[in-house]
Amino acid sequence: MSGGLFDALYASGPVRSRTDDRAWLQAMLDVEAAIARAGARAGLVPREAADAIASRCVADEYDADDIGQRAVASATWVVPLVADLKARLPASARGYVHLGATSQDIVDSAMSLVTARATDAILATLGEVSTSLAGLARAHRDTLQIGRTLLQHAVPTTFGVVCAGWLVAVDEAAGGLDRVRRERLAVQFGGAVGTLATYGDRGPQLVGYVADELGLAAPTMPWHTCRVRIDEAAAALGIVSGVLAAIAGDVALLAGSDIAEVAEGEPGVSSAMPHKRNPTRAVLVTACTHQVPPLVATMLGAAAQEHQRAAGRWQAEWPTMTALLRLVGSAATHADAMLAGLRVDVDRMRLNLDTAGDVILAEAVAVRLARVLGRTRASAVVAEAVARAVRAGTTMRAALVDLAPEAATVPFPGPEACLGAAGEWIDRALECHDKPTEG
Amino acid sequence: MSGGLFDALYASGPVRSRTDDRAWLQAMLDVEAAIARAGARAGLVPREAADAIASRCVADEYDADDIGQRAVASATWVVPLVADLKARLPASARGYVHLGATSQDIVDSAMSLVTARATDAILATLGEVSTSLAGLARAHRDTLQIGRTLLQHAVPTTFGVVCAGWLVAVDEAAGGLDRVRRERLAVQFGGAVGTLATYGDRGPQLVGYVADELGLAAPTMPWHTCRVRIDEAAAALGIVSGVLAAIAGDVALLAGSDIAEVAEGEPGVSSAMPHKRNPTRAVLVTACTHQVPPLVATMLGAAAQEHQRAAGRWQAEWPTMTALLRLVGSAATHADAMLAGLRVDVDRMRLNLDTAGDVILAEAVAVRLARVLGRTRASAVVAEAVARAVRAGTTMRAALVDLAPEAATVPFPGPEACLGAAGEWIDRALECHDKPTEG
Amino acid sequence: MSGGLFDALYASGPVRSRTDDRAWLQAMLDVEAAIARAGARAGLVPREAADAIASRCVADEYDADDIGQRAVASATWVVPLVADLKARLPASARGYVHLGATSQDIVDSAMSLVTARATDAILATLGEVSTSLAGLARAHRDTLQIGRTLLQHAVPTTFGVVCAGWLVAVDEAAGGLDRVRRERLAVQFGGAVGTLATYGDRGPQLVGYVADELGLAAPTMPWHTCRVRIDEAAAALGIVSGVLAAIAGDVALLAGSDIAEVAEGEPGVSSAMPHKRNPTRAVLVTACTHQVPPLVATMLGAAAQEHQRAAGRWQAEWPTMTALLRLVGSAATHADAMLAGLRVDVDRMRLNLDTAGDVILAEAVAVRLARVLGRTRASAVVAEAVARAVRAGTTMRAALVDLAPEAATVPFPGPEACLGAAGEWIDRALECHDKPTEG
Amino acid sequence: MSGGLFDALYASGPVRSRTDDRAWLQAMLDVEAAIARAGARAGLVPREAADAIASRCVADEYDADDIGQRAVASATWVVPLVADLKARLPASARGYVHLGATSQDIVDSAMSLVTARATDAILATLGEVSTSLAGLARAHRDTLQIGRTLLQHAVPTTFGVVCAGWLVAVDEAAGGLDRVRRERLAVQFGGAVGTLATYGDRGPQLVGYVADELGLAAPTMPWHTCRVRIDEAAAALGIVSGVLAAIAGDVALLAGSDIAEVAEGEPGVSSAMPHKRNPTRAVLVTACTHQVPPLVATMLGAAAQEHQRAAGRWQAEWPTMTALLRLVGSAATHADAMLAGLRVDVDRMRLNLDTAGDVILAEAVAVRLARVLGRTRASAVVAEAVARAVRAGTTMRAALVDLAPEAATVPFPGPEACLGAAGEWIDRALECHDKPTEG
Repeated sequence: MSGGLFDALYASGPVRSRTDDRAWLQAMLDVEAAIARAGARAGLVPREAADAIASRCVADEYDADDIGQRAVASATWVVPLVADLKARLPASARGYVHLGATSQDIVDSAMSLVTARATDAILATLGEVSTSLAGLARAHRDTLQIGRTLLQHAVPTTFGVVCAGWLVAVDEAAGGLDRVRRERLAVQFGGAVGTLATYGDRGPQLVGYVADELGLAAPTMPWHTCRVRIDEAAAALGIVSGVLAAIAGDVALLAGSDIAEVAEGEPGVSSAMPHKRNPTRAVLVTACTHQVPPLVATMLGAAAQEHQRAAGRWQAEWPTMTALLRLVGSAATHADAMLAGLRVDVDRMRLNLDTAGDVILAEAVAVRLARVLGRTRASAVVAEAVARAVRAGTTMRAALVDLAPEAATVPFPGPEACLGAAGEWIDRALECHDKPTEG
Repeated sequence: MSGGLFDALYASGPVRSRTDDRAWLQAMLDVEAAIARAGARAGLVPREAADAIASRCVADEYDADDIGQRAVASATWVVPLVADLKARLPASARGYVHLGATSQDIVDSAMSLVTARATDAILATLGEVSTSLAGLARAHRDTLQIGRTLLQHAVPTTFGVVCAGWLVAVDEAAGGLDRVRRERLAVQFGGAVGTLATYGDRGPQLVGYVADELGLAAPTMPWHTCRVRIDEAAAALGIVSGVLAAIAGDVALLAGSDIAEVAEGEPGVSSAMPHKRNPTRAVLVTACTHQVPPLVATMLGAAAQEHQRAAGRWQAEWPTMTALLRLVGSAATHADAMLAGLRVDVDRMRLNLDTAGDVILAEAVAVRLARVLGRTRASAVVAEAVARAVRAGTTMRAALVDLAPEAATVPFPGPEACLGAAGEWIDRALECHDKPTEG
Repeated sequence: MSGGLFDALYASGPVRSRTDDRAWLQAMLDVEAAIARAGARAGLVPREAADAIASRCVADEYDADDIGQRAVASATWVVPLVADLKARLPASARGYVHLGATSQDIVDSAMSLVTARATDAILATLGEVSTSLAGLARAHRDTLQIGRTLLQHAVPTTFGVVCAGWLVAVDEAAGGLDRVRRERLAVQFGGAVGTLATYGDRGPQLVGYVADELGLAAPTMPWHTCRVRIDEAAAALGIVSGVLAAIAGDVALLAGSDIAEVAEGEPGVSSAMPHKRNPTRAVLVTACTHQVPPLVATMLGAAAQEHQRAAGRWQAEWPTMTALLRLVGSAATHADAMLAGLRVDVDRMRLNLDTAGDVILAEAVAVRLARVLGRTRASAVVAEAVARAVRAGTTMRAALVDLAPEAATVPFPGPEACLGAAGEWIDRALECHDKPTEG
Repeated sequence: MSGGLFDALYASGPVRSRTDDRAWLQAMLDVEAAIARAGARAGLVPREAADAIASRCVADEYDADDIGQRAVASATWVVPLVADLKARLPASARGYVHLGATSQDIVDSAMSLVTARATDAILATLGEVSTSLAGLARAHRDTLQIGRTLLQHAVPTTFGVVCAGWLVAVDEAAGGLDRVRRERLAVQFGGAVGTLATYGDRGPQLVGYVADELGLAAPTMPWHTCRVRIDEAAAALGIVSGVLAAIAGDVALLAGSDIAEVAEGEPGVSSAMPHKRNPTRAVLVTACTHQVPPLVATMLGAAAQEHQRAAGRWQAEWPTMTALLRLVGSAATHADAMLAGLRVDVDRMRLNLDTAGDVILAEAVAVRLARVLGRTRASAVVAEAVARAVRAGTTMRAALVDLAPEAATVPFPGPEACLGAAGEWIDRALECHDKPTEG
């Protein structure tokens, strides 16, 4: 069982086994076990019954195919799963299975668990991505690169500060996901319509026990048709995805033959065109992340749920959340591979910078020239010099001296003198990165 | 292999086996075989080589898991698949495999094939859905029902004309999908950058042969990064989905305990609440179709593809198209089950209509009263009578006679006399349905 | 200027004037003024120049139509706006306008400002919505209502706990939006490629001053193509929207003629059907919120931005963020109107509950019966009694006594005894609501 | 009134005035006039009354702001519009206004009209785009360009065939939109619940007359909650958008400083960086088209409409369809400007091709070498030669002769000999383009 054609591309890395049928079955069974144990703790379920139940809450004992088929009759996996669990139990324990619960309690709590477990893996991978980016930011603190805006050469920057920007983005997005995972992923336990009627006035106590057992937050009250918490998880995943998409898009552009400033450690080969250095991992990150924003819309759009249990939109969340976790986890895994071995061609970066000509220093020159010519004239003269340089294919400097001979006396800065706060930004990004947690 | 937890819900019916790994592998192999045979037909490939190639183009001989894993290195299944195919061939045939093709040719043509084959199954299921709806439209031609607008009781209609409206929608949506399947799903064959350079000036001939072999349309020219055709398929699926969603939504509402005018043939049971009659199939149709529109957006958003082959957005299409086919096919299957056994409670429909009171006949009464009171006064009097009836909880008729004694002489219509063109619409819908094809 | 055909429906309430052309112009001008003042504070811009600049940063002096037209040439409003600002200034101040800034600094900081200002209005409206819901939860603590799952009658609940669930959802979603507004909406100030080259090593100081001036957060470093912060705002708006959609959907269903448990304070009239009580505000909330999730996807999908400034996807954010704010603000305004005057028909709720029959008490009866018959037999007997009752149209109780005469001795609970934790949930929801802030 | 900050960017060109408040008002009034005239034609409305009604159906007489405000009470513009229309009429005509119609009839028919009229403008602009592309395809039939796959240099192509591919895509997408406009945009006329009860059995005749008056298709039956037709329009617009996005994305990349093969006729200027040649129109096309796919999802997702009139999702269609038309029309206008003045740097294209080295001819060389070395050895030798060339930075040819001295005798093709079917594809694209209509 290694995932067929699609999973290695779109459900790559540790997230797959945390979101597959076995993971879902185990999560649902964990919830059933937790409810039984909570009942025992509250004195409502005999300890032996709870133990018996928990001992059979092992995913490998159950047949996902069969449960899937039988789920059609009730539009939920829980009816057949509970039947199969009961069938494995002695009569004395059977009556304590699923006590006071409704199917939605099991599926929602399991969705929180699956999301939490997959998110832990995603956060770990994002940690690796950050580490790579921090390393690149440090290593390329002084690596000059031409900045590009609207795909046009603009003014100098460094590859280090580019990586620092990516680092901040990854750390902030991961921080948001981490917060949701710790504070917001909650147990669901409300019974048929959210009142936990079976438990009389002891429902709230039970909810707390179940949350304890599962390591999930205890909600203010049941949230059967109030989907804020799970939607926060979906949104946080979507934001992580956007950051990875931005980085991968830039890596693919920078790795393109026409720029060629970076290459993946193991670029893809093309049998027909053996000279190509395909940015395969960047391509896969883009392929995964492109699918994510509409899935977030699917989740948000599912929030309009009817009365005490939705007739369809809730049931649309389960595969969507699974797909979100898989795609974002897979994107993180590919991004990790993309960055861990990234080859940076410092010379090519310098060459591309030089190719851009001295017009990219126009702003810096204008500032220096202002001391001699005054701010207004300096601006005007530089603009004209740039125009001439671009038209004639000469340097701006030559045009400048023609226009204003005083310019010859002004020391002309190199690009390394035009980097402003680049170094400071790197320091800040690394400092934030090294802090225990983002808020 | 029966599909685990998810497929019975979200990839139900014949569409699943037409979109699984085996289906994709077979489709890619069919394309390789077709290219070899086309080469033979053009005299460019020895007949025996083509036969040898075709004879090994059998999905079951290949290992989807292994190909999936190896696909990561090149971001395409085709590199490992072609390697495995070659490994199964004698040296004399090996050089003729994949001749002049690029990976995208294989995947795109396979995507057209998978889409075509799955669409055939979907259209067949939609045919069943239509047949059920035509039967309901015929059977309930005279079944009175209260029309509801903004969820409020409005004026009388018939359940027959409601079903006729659904029938027209299904037939039109299926007609659109059928057109795309027949006219627009095309072979892709362009070689590395679309010029089919390997074949010199014989490329166009080869494309025609390959299209012939595969039963797909031959495009004007390669469409590597021009995604109109595949996007038309996605859009047509999205439109089918919307129609099924509308029908299922209404069935769920009508089956709700507060209306209770219909019930599914095999309503879902709830162990905790055995009195419930859950509209399970309607729920599943909604769960499937809710996921579809964002996937169409994913496809349309993937159209912005770079140069001669996209660096990520093309690769996002494969799982998305697969998911679209599965969800729409599954929705059709559930809709078919939902409608095939639909129980219509004619008495409850009449009861609900009567509960709405005679105010629902206001418009019809006003028309009749106008002959006596004139159009303007009739309107005013009826409006006032309705207001009084609603306020006082009496009948509109009583209020009317109070306001305008002449009203007592006007024959008051029953709801069956207020159905306008309902019967004619049913006739038209059935007539269109019985025509061979929608245009 | 009252907004034409669309705004009263889709950009209703205070949010409109905070997101219109004037609001955007003022926000951009506020940013220019803040940069000038920050420069003065740092000693880089003469105080008089800064004052002169700030004095002309008044939206009403500028022509949005004209700036819009001229923006086409540069794909940004800032080029013409800065030109117009300069034209209003004495030569001595002109050179200090927009110092060291790039267009993106102005637009992004303005987008943060517009978002912050509109969000303040949205949060205020959500506060009104919460107040209404808290009032309803309190008032209807003991108002019995039949709970509905999959649109089927399930077991009893109270309208108070339903409102408490809505309250928690609104408060949590508003809390998330509030957090983003206070902590995450940040100034953008990076110059051409994010290095603030003009300011040498003083850039970070300047960013802090600008943030101070604008009341926005200061980012770790410029975020030109790292869109986490603005995407968090979009996501938080999307989550608010989902909550409002859920409430409005339920209000529309409950207001439907077949349920009729609530009505809007000023229901819509229909000239043709004067008896209708259209849930107009609920309809408008649904109309607004239905548009939101795909717009969130547009924002998240725009995150893949190239290099140091995106060539199109950034420019797609401006109208999208504007639309998001308008739709969510409008939904909140309509929801406020919907709930502020909501009429609750307590008698109809009771009637509908009674209509559901005593089968809705099956679970509660089984618990009581277990004391006499044992858990297993009690369950079996109750299930059979429900089945008979549903089949025969009698009460469950009668069937029960037939099946197990001992049942006659068991006190049969009324629905008010079957509410479990409903009261406790209301208390908790109100307690959370009364706390200063959500965590 | 020239559109404020946003319209010049996102609602540019002729589409704006065809989708603004005036256009919507006029369309609704045209529908009211058509219904009156149809009534007269059927003998149900006095001719003078119909004439009187039609004479006041002039948008400029009505106040969009006021109607917008009053629309909140009924969630439709039609109630206040009809009131205002009646107020302008003599008593004798008043009773014939809006006869037998429901608000949805007016809004849906108006939406069809607005869509039709805006689509006509969009199709005209797309015609200009096509003409430009056809010209470029013809002019650059022999302009060599390096093909790029996954952003890597691949093998030679021509800029002519690239433009031909764009041409086919535009023509096919426009063809699809044209078909929907002509065949599918239909009148809506059904009365309160679709039965046209007011007209007894004459409803179908009336529908035909109204369709006639408006130049729209007559539907099989009313489609109040069956949204196939309008969704087909949305989908066709989405497909056009995807094509424009792909072209603009490529233009922006090709215009980037690192490739510099094309430039817009009037590139955007940057005051701070006067050397830049911003691809402003490409940026705006991308900004517009990025917003489109989620809007298509909004439309498709709105298809699940309740009973005989939806409580919110229908009302979400009006602004969404308007936005779709504006964005796609605007994208077409910007694309037209982008392409009409496109400057193609043939020398730079050749330079970039040459920079790619002779490895891009590997496939062509292998074919020729196979005649001497046999297919298998030729492939192996070429692959090794490419590897050496890439490693050592020499030419493939040199490496080849080292490896296989016989290679020296094989004539080495120039890139112009490696273009396969490029010319034929251009011919085909132009031939299809010159045909009257796409099928």
